[in-house]
Amino acid sequence: MNLVLLFEEDFVGDRNLVRLKGRRHAHVRNVLRASAGDRLCVGIAGGNIGEGTITLLDDEALDMEIKADCHPPPPLPVTVILALPRPKALRRVIASITTMGVKRIIIINAYRVEKSYWKSPFLEKAEMDKQIILGLEQARDTIFPEIMLRPLFKPFAEDELPGIIKGSLLLVAHPAATEACPFDVKQPVTIAVGPEAGFIPYEIEKLFACGFNPVRMGDRILTVETAIPVLLSRFL
Amino acid sequence: MNLVLLFEEDFVGDRNLVRLKGRRHAHVRNVLRASAGDRLCVGIAGGNIGEGTITLLDDEALDMEIKADCHPPPPLPVTVILALPRPKALRRVIASITTMGVKRIIIINAYRVEKSYWKSPFLEKAEMDKQIILGLEQARDTIFPEIMLRPLFKPFAEDELPGIIKGSLLLVAHPAATEACPFDVKQPVTIAVGPEAGFIPYEIEKLFACGFNPVRMGDRILTVETAIPVLLSRFL
Repeated sequence: MNLVLLFEEDFVGDRNLVRLKGRRHAHVRNVLRASAGDRLCVGIAGGNIGEGTITLLDDEALDMEIKADCHPPPPLPVTVILALPRPKALRRVIASITTMGVKRIIIINAYRVEKSYWKSPFLEKAEMDKQIILGLEQARDTIFPEIMLRPLFKPFAEDELPGIIKGSLLLVAHPAATEACPFDVKQPVTIAVGPEAGFIPYEIEKLFACGFNPVRMGDRILTVETAIPVLLSRFL
Repeated sequence: MNLVLLFEEDFVGDRNLVRLKGRRHAHVRNVLRASAGDRLCVGIAGGNIGEGTITLLDDEALDMEIKADCHPPPPLPVTVILALPRPKALRRVIASITTMGVKRIIIINAYRVEKSYWKSPFLEKAEMDKQIILGLEQARDTIFPEIMLRPLFKPFAEDELPGIIKGSLLLVAHPAATEACPFDVKQPVTIAVGPEAGFIPYEIEKLFACGFNPVRMGDRILTVETAIPVLLSRFL
């Protein structure tokens, strides 16, 4: 936790005072081992970042006086389209994509996605938000990414995708590609990443029809947890 | 599991026949849902890769006839020097570094590494090997990376490091750096990655004295699980 993320309900009375209990209170106390008078990096969800001065820290609660007058770091102008991975991998991937500053994540179905993954409780908004919050706290950011779930590939690819990708460089990670993933790109990017066993030819054709370019990331088959930071690294 | 990794003790009688039980048997049966006659990608630990034809697959065992006459993929000419992370993170990092083809990983102490981490059972060879095997199976590789544990920073940095780094480009991930991490480097690389809270100035000075160059990876603070693929991406 490199930043304590604050929400409207944390503020008490005056707009500059917060009172925290639960996970953040425990973390500041037991991991950061802070005490009254210490200053912590704080951020207001969806808003500014700044500093909180601890006015009280006991068994019950953490009180801070907040001054938040700096902008959060700039977003990464990348949209990630991701075939739904295993739920455990999804959790880590959501946190890691958030950490890297991506503000739009579209989770899609694909033929080789296990049907049962779509029933996972990790897809519920509250569970996703937990991972997003971990990612924002890690990166000292406050802006939640938008997460879109699209359990039907065809209508997504045909009706919605063309509008989403307008003006962006379109890349799909594909083992048969001959071009390396570009770096240092100056325009917005949309990256599509298939399921572990890859997109099927029909899906790849649909993406090609939208203008996606196949790119490769070396000879090795990477897990989605590794592939996503490897791809996003090119645009950091 | 994109490759079934085989060990000497798996071979029965003839040098081309293997019998597998346990994890690999269960995976081929329940996840890959293979059956007799199917062919699987196989590799011999430390040796060639090739194909195994299933001759028997029942409740008890998986028998295959092996032909392994291809070289494993080329290694990534990168040495990773890593301040010991949280044990849970370490496990994932070892698998992910292995997947990307690194063949030398040096785990070092640093002032901001929690002392208790050095007592973790995950540092035992058998536990490390489990993660390495997962990484090799993922990447279709057979060559185990060498893992060196160096729980004393000063003698490592002063006596051993200068010999290890000879001829390689030396990079240390450092938030205060102004240079971006280079990419498409044509010589061997040694990358040093500090603990979550960073190397202390004394440690950074020691690395600078050895010739390490500070590099940055954007404005955001990444977890070690994300930072490692982000850094290695530059050399894939």
